[in-house]
Amino acid sequence: MVFLFVFSNFVPNMKTVLIGAGNIATVLGHALYNAKHDIVQVYSHTMAAAILLAKKLNATPTNSLDTITNNADLYIIAVKDSVLDAVISKLCINRTDKLFVHTAGSVSIDVFCGRAKRYGVLYPMQTFSKTRIIDFQNIPIFIEADSNSTLQTITNVAQSVSNNVCQLSSADRRYLHLAAVWACNYTNFCYNMAAETLQKVGLSFDIMLPLIDETARKVHYLSPQEAQTGPAIRYDKNIIEAQMKLMNYDKSAQQLYQLMAENIHKRNKK
Amino acid sequence: MVFLFVFSNFVPNMKTVLIGAGNIATVLGHALYNAKHDIVQVYSHTMAAAILLAKKLNATPTNSLDTITNNADLYIIAVKDSVLDAVISKLCINRTDKLFVHTAGSVSIDVFCGRAKRYGVLYPMQTFSKTRIIDFQNIPIFIEADSNSTLQTITNVAQSVSNNVCQLSSADRRYLHLAAVWACNYTNFCYNMAAETLQKVGLSFDIMLPLIDETARKVHYLSPQEAQTGPAIRYDKNIIEAQMKLMNYDKSAQQLYQLMAENIHKRNKK
Repeated sequence: MVFLFVFSNFVPNMKTVLIGAGNIATVLGHALYNAKHDIVQVYSHTMAAAILLAKKLNATPTNSLDTITNNADLYIIAVKDSVLDAVISKLCINRTDKLFVHTAGSVSIDVFCGRAKRYGVLYPMQTFSKTRIIDFQNIPIFIEADSNSTLQTITNVAQSVSNNVCQLSSADRRYLHLAAVWACNYTNFCYNMAAETLQKVGLSFDIMLPLIDETARKVHYLSPQEAQTGPAIRYDKNIIEAQMKLMNYDKSAQQLYQLMAENIHKRNKK
Repeated sequence: MVFLFVFSNFVPNMKTVLIGAGNIATVLGHALYNAKHDIVQVYSHTMAAAILLAKKLNATPTNSLDTITNNADLYIIAVKDSVLDAVISKLCINRTDKLFVHTAGSVSIDVFCGRAKRYGVLYPMQTFSKTRIIDFQNIPIFIEADSNSTLQTITNVAQSVSNNVCQLSSADRRYLHLAAVWACNYTNFCYNMAAETLQKVGLSFDIMLPLIDETARKVHYLSPQEAQTGPAIRYDKNIIEAQMKLMNYDKSAQQLYQLMAENIHKRNKK
């Protein structure tokens, strides 16, 4: 991983087409717009979604890849991983002088090979929801490019919205994205399990917030291994069995609870 | 759950014996000490631990339950759940006029039945590590007592260290504690899995912190169900399978990953 510092405030305004109007496209689109880039067009396969985002970014909406303008410098592809390959294949044709980047944590830069000349990856590692526009400045952005000159351009764009830009290879980014799934998606699912548990006795999820906040704060100072507390790390069989019983209403969640306890215990023995 | 408000600032100084010198005893002991309660004695089965904490709280250390003083008002039992019953059994004999509370999330108030006359529970729901003395004021404390008069005393003690004191029955507290295991212990284990994953490619855990912080902040505004993002909620099989492969080095963690993905997906279909 290479942290990138550019000692220049000069960030040329980029005429940008945003392919996608989902969570990442929405939040990144706002950040680019606020950094004075010119978002010329927003594509979504759903016209309503394209219109909604385009309106906010002062851009033209479209739901057809055939109507994407050639009059832009940068094409940011922020669509579902499952359609990324098909979109790139269609988009790059006859636009070989343009710069293309995708924003997917798990997709290699090689997806552009043989399809574009100037390309790269701009992966903002954060959890995005359309309804929550967050400050981009501290979000780590991991970038990669086909060449040094493209890298410089992508660095400029990334640094115009974030103070935390790093270069990372596709191979290493796969691990980074897996780590992000654990630290964010699976963590949030643990919150969800807490919420479901509290519902059983009519308690509000809000009472968990001080605990959730401190759990997150704690790993700023201690490693997660050092910060681990609770019945599983002590391997307190009485509590573990009693809590398993409480979860009788959901066998699959019960199985998950047990596997978590075993994995925590196993690491403590090491 | 009943939130307790007492419109009086009068909190009589309690002569307190602290049974235990682990994580909860250490942090709660400091909070009580700072709230001007008189910690007269600290017990731990390890003399070194008793001395270490007693010194900080200006108390006398002991590693023998036989030498616990009778000259106190309140006996706070903050020991491992597995030894709680044995400690209570020994401690309460010949001290029937004293007030006893335990701090265990999962243990019923009934553990005192037939052993003490004035007793209760004072469960501070937080993750405590000895090395991290945290501000107690916002920590929710869940209390329970044998009678209204005991409840008033325990309320006074709890409110002298926290602004967030609620009455909760033992039956409901079991669910609360299970929810806390999910929201804290299992969440922290997800952080740990992220750390292990990053180690594989030599990346620092610190790069996860903005993501971890935002994941925690998000559920202040959205329910965990609404906040869920990532490959599992989209049930993106390509990514899920590729990430499973990356985890080939740890079959048990791989199984956990898969079960998490299935549980997230299942809830999304509902």
